Amino acid sequence: MPGLKRGTLVIIGGAEDKTADMRILKIVYRLSGGDNGTVAVVTTATNSPYEAEKEYNDIFKNLGSKAVYGINISNRAQADDQRLIKQIRECDCIFFVGGDQLRISSILGGTEFHKAVLESLNNGKVIAGTSAGASMMSQVMVVEGRDDEAPRKCTLKMAPGMGLLQGVIIDQHFNQRGRIGRLLAAVAQNPGVIGIGIDEDTAAIVNSELNLKVAGSGVVTVVDGRDITFTNTSEQYAEEPLAITNVKIHVFPEGYGFNLVTKQGIIQKDEK
Amino acid sequence: MPGLKRGTLVIIGGAEDKTADMRILKIVYRLSGGDNGTVAVVTTATNSPYEAEKEYNDIFKNLGSKAVYGINISNRAQADDQRLIKQIRECDCIFFVGGDQLRISSILGGTEFHKAVLESLNNGKVIAGTSAGASMMSQVMVVEGRDDEAPRKCTLKMAPGMGLLQGVIIDQHFNQRGRIGRLLAAVAQNPGVIGIGIDEDTAAIVNSELNLKVAGSGVVTVVDGRDITFTNTSEQYAEEPLAITNVKIHVFPEGYGFNLVTKQGIIQKDEK
Repeated sequence: MPGLKRGTLVIIGGAEDKTADMRILKIVYRLSGGDNGTVAVVTTATNSPYEAEKEYNDIFKNLGSKAVYGINISNRAQADDQRLIKQIRECDCIFFVGGDQLRISSILGGTEFHKAVLESLNNGKVIAGTSAGASMMSQVMVVEGRDDEAPRKCTLKMAPGMGLLQGVIIDQHFNQRGRIGRLLAAVAQNPGVIGIGIDEDTAAIVNSELNLKVAGSGVVTVVDGRDITFTNTSEQYAEEPLAITNVKIHVFPEGYGFNLVTKQGIIQKDEK
Repeated sequence: MPGLKRGTLVIIGGAEDKTADMRILKIVYRLSGGDNGTVAVVTTATNSPYEAEKEYNDIFKNLGSKAVYGINISNRAQADDQRLIKQIRECDCIFFVGGDQLRISSILGGTEFHKAVLESLNNGKVIAGTSAGASMMSQVMVVEGRDDEAPRKCTLKMAPGMGLLQGVIIDQHFNQRGRIGRLLAAVAQNPGVIGIGIDEDTAAIVNSELNLKVAGSGVVTVVDGRDITFTNTSEQYAEEPLAITNVKIHVFPEGYGFNLVTKQGIIQKDEK
């Protein structure tokens, strides 16, 4: 599982608390170096970039971050701007706000900015993202699929993600939007890929050893399809409901985790 | 797994189609003997018994059932009424409408009517139920729990059901209301019990050999907790999210099924 050498991913399922205990955002702040850390807030996913920049700028400044930069890239030309690339390279954390994951991949994919993000990760930096900023981290990402619905074979649309984490497919707002059906359908299409469903106000923190630890008020659901004995996913009719047998599921709240290499749960609960 | 000798259960996840192809209700009509069949519609679960009676009366009459009886029991005294008991014993199918499953168990539980239902099942009759009428069939039923939420340990309330099917816990409106979390929490409490989540407009049809077959437009999700390696469900704090590892999940659309004795999927798709 190449692509991740020394950095940390903080993959947030959306709707992280921003006013009360700010559990998740405090973790981002601490992992970024605390009072000595600089955070870049990338607003590409949203149509309201300045509101999003201001919101996260205020939060990280109030928590104590040394500097917060808003990176409001909204087209591919800007994503090759050397001034922005330099700024990104100097930050301890690159934080992707939520919105539309296709905006992230279509505007940033393959640009100098994208390369700088991957290099930052490989140089030990923190890459964080919430909602769309979480989904985009895998190599293949769910773009659109039905919530609160029975799994159907091919009704979910997928697209190439930003490739920060290999061998997984990430879904967010997971239990809150009833997305087990679409994650099962995604895993059925390639049971070699681990499905990771992250709840709101919850983060999957993936370190350099590919240990995924959970933080926040919800849970992370891991879908392991390697033992699937049967699925009709290769059959013809896309709207037909999915059949799938022997999918393994794990559910992990804060303090628990999962090793993405051994694919085993980490059930020793440790308090930070 | 005693309690079921020769009859058939039609366990419907709610919101079955009543106007277009009526896939599920036609199956109930056919299993009940078609044009020679008599159906009792039990409206105990609902606060609008006469509307429900009229709706299902019209449907089964239009499909061709020989006779349809409305059984509007709303208190325990009525549930010992010998005239109603006699009427129930003569029907080919007893159909429980949706509403509140606690109304069914609190009004009918332990009455002569309840005994007559169990006897009818053991004499080869069809017992059908939708939504609350589905949930009440297991020995323990989910009464209340959060939808679209991360599984939490003890936030779901359970109550004794009517015991028509042993060793299972049934949940309805399953993918439509994002109920995987609460079914996982239920199974974590006793991994010996198989969780059965039934979608809207979908039925689990359980025959005398305890083969469960799926019909309708959604899927039936089977949660098998026997291989669970860890759960924190016995720990103290009820509001804490659930940790659970190695839960096995199967998803079955129409034509597929699951044997409740061997606990294996039935993946030969047969058309009725």
